[in-house]
Amino acid sequence: MISRFQELSQEFSILFKQKHFPAYPETLYGAASYMLEEGGKRIRPVLCLMGNELFGPIQADSWKIAIAIELFHNFTLIHDDIMDKAPLRRGRATVHARFDESTALLAGDVMLLQAYEYMNETDSKHVQHLIRLLNKTGREVCEGQQLDMDFEKIHSITLDAYMHMIELKTAVFLAGSLRMGAVVAGASESDQQNIYDFGKNLGLAFQVQDDWLDTFGDPSTFGKQRGGDITANKKTFLLVKCLESASPEQKQDLIELLIYAGPDKIDRMTAIYRAAGVDRVAQEAKNYYMGKAYAHLENIQVPERNKTALKELAASLLERKI
Amino acid sequence: MISRFQELSQEFSILFKQKHFPAYPETLYGAASYMLEEGGKRIRPVLCLMGNELFGPIQADSWKIAIAIELFHNFTLIHDDIMDKAPLRRGRATVHARFDESTALLAGDVMLLQAYEYMNETDSKHVQHLIRLLNKTGREVCEGQQLDMDFEKIHSITLDAYMHMIELKTAVFLAGSLRMGAVVAGASESDQQNIYDFGKNLGLAFQVQDDWLDTFGDPSTFGKQRGGDITANKKTFLLVKCLESASPEQKQDLIELLIYAGPDKIDRMTAIYRAAGVDRVAQEAKNYYMGKAYAHLENIQVPERNKTALKELAASLLERKI
Repeated sequence: MISRFQELSQEFSILFKQKHFPAYPETLYGAASYMLEEGGKRIRPVLCLMGNELFGPIQADSWKIAIAIELFHNFTLIHDDIMDKAPLRRGRATVHARFDESTALLAGDVMLLQAYEYMNETDSKHVQHLIRLLNKTGREVCEGQQLDMDFEKIHSITLDAYMHMIELKTAVFLAGSLRMGAVVAGASESDQQNIYDFGKNLGLAFQVQDDWLDTFGDPSTFGKQRGGDITANKKTFLLVKCLESASPEQKQDLIELLIYAGPDKIDRMTAIYRAAGVDRVAQEAKNYYMGKAYAHLENIQVPERNKTALKELAASLLERKI
Repeated sequence: MISRFQELSQEFSILFKQKHFPAYPETLYGAASYMLEEGGKRIRPVLCLMGNELFGPIQADSWKIAIAIELFHNFTLIHDDIMDKAPLRRGRATVHARFDESTALLAGDVMLLQAYEYMNETDSKHVQHLIRLLNKTGREVCEGQQLDMDFEKIHSITLDAYMHMIELKTAVFLAGSLRMGAVVAGASESDQQNIYDFGKNLGLAFQVQDDWLDTFGDPSTFGKQRGGDITANKKTFLLVKCLESASPEQKQDLIELLIYAGPDKIDRMTAIYRAAGVDRVAQEAKNYYMGKAYAHLENIQVPERNKTALKELAASLLERKI
């Protein structure tokens, strides 16, 4: 059976096919439009729609905000890809690889400006609240990206610092998208905060799971090759926690493995993670954030049946894999 | 005697010294704050204040918008410097040179987001109109920057195309700043359009003059070495017009000179400009845009004495040099 998330994702994707930019200069807007040609899952805009529908039938402004959110998300992706020097995204050349860095930089800028244009077209009753939320979320996403780059240069960071970075870089945008839908619905401050915290904790749980799956998941269901993070020496929940809590001997082995590139690197790192128990700690952390997310959803003052779609979405994101 | 422009520029500079960013992450906000340490002339924010004062005493919201405008301007400068690979701005290392490109890119992004934050704090009566203006102006500035980069790769462009690029890249932001002040004042649509067109034509006249001065100006009053644009083969009003209207022989000489780097390059190019009459055409064009600017200022329905400050500013920008 098709889920409410899938229904809304399809409906949004059709709406989002509209032209968002003028034709000229083609060098600029062609690059911006190129970025939008390949879809993605549309999680953030659909979260906005679901955050609105939690309180009643979807209101027209939610669709405008959903478009703004998706444009904003693509602005961050274009600029992130420049910073990461990534050649590919969703199987295609990134904007800076297909065009050039300057054009990609400007395409990201106009994408952001266009997001504000849609946001600014919503009803005057909520527009300042919504733009304030977008500003705050946007700043936090930038802070998260900066911390992520900073952490790549630091040998040892605390798990708290890592989770804070994840919160900024990915969780707050999911949370903010849900909250924007709730704002349009005229939800109470308390309900707004609960839906925000539901989204934030869902995002944290999802990221911890993602880190766990990369090392311990079943490649046939996960869809990626196992151990990619280990090969790339990427800072993950597992590595950060292991460097923080492993025994001195394990830590020494780990540090040596970080500069090792032999064929058994993945197996040896995985063995240390297991020995140090960080696979279990990750599962516990995921369950902790999941529990918090569900508790915040419970607290929202709407009929239980209104929450079904969000519960199903959370379950499909989180429960089948770890 | 100190002009009204200078008074407001000083007053604004003091206000603008306030902290615009949080302390953490220092790697991100330190770079953003670094950009703001060196002043500049504050033309755009002061134009907003003067556009407001044209209609009566300056209103509180104008100061918020002036701050937003200056932050927005600095966002464009940080990103432009990345694209132009410029090592210096206002005599100091550019943000990307002092830090790194990724940090500069993100610092520009948070600068833009913070501009929207100030803009969004203005009275709800005008906020959507103001943000719509900022969105439009911002997109046009990006379009102008893209066209400027595109034109560098094209041998021959029309003067119309060059002036359109200048309009987008620099003139509309001056025009938009003035208009924002008028919007806050509750000016009529017609007065708003006239102050906008005053600013746009003033910007065009100023740019034409700037191009003329680089080749024909007196270095002792202009403050830059003569012929910098010629040495850099920069597309200017003079070069574009000359390539468009010179005789076949002059055009051939010009094209040869573009790939020539001898010590007499500046003198030989200048001689062709004179022979083709483009120095005179530039002066006529400047006078044409100046005339249009003043005509639009005349049309504004306020007492003549209210226009004195803007007339003085226009004169000081335009009348003493060509």
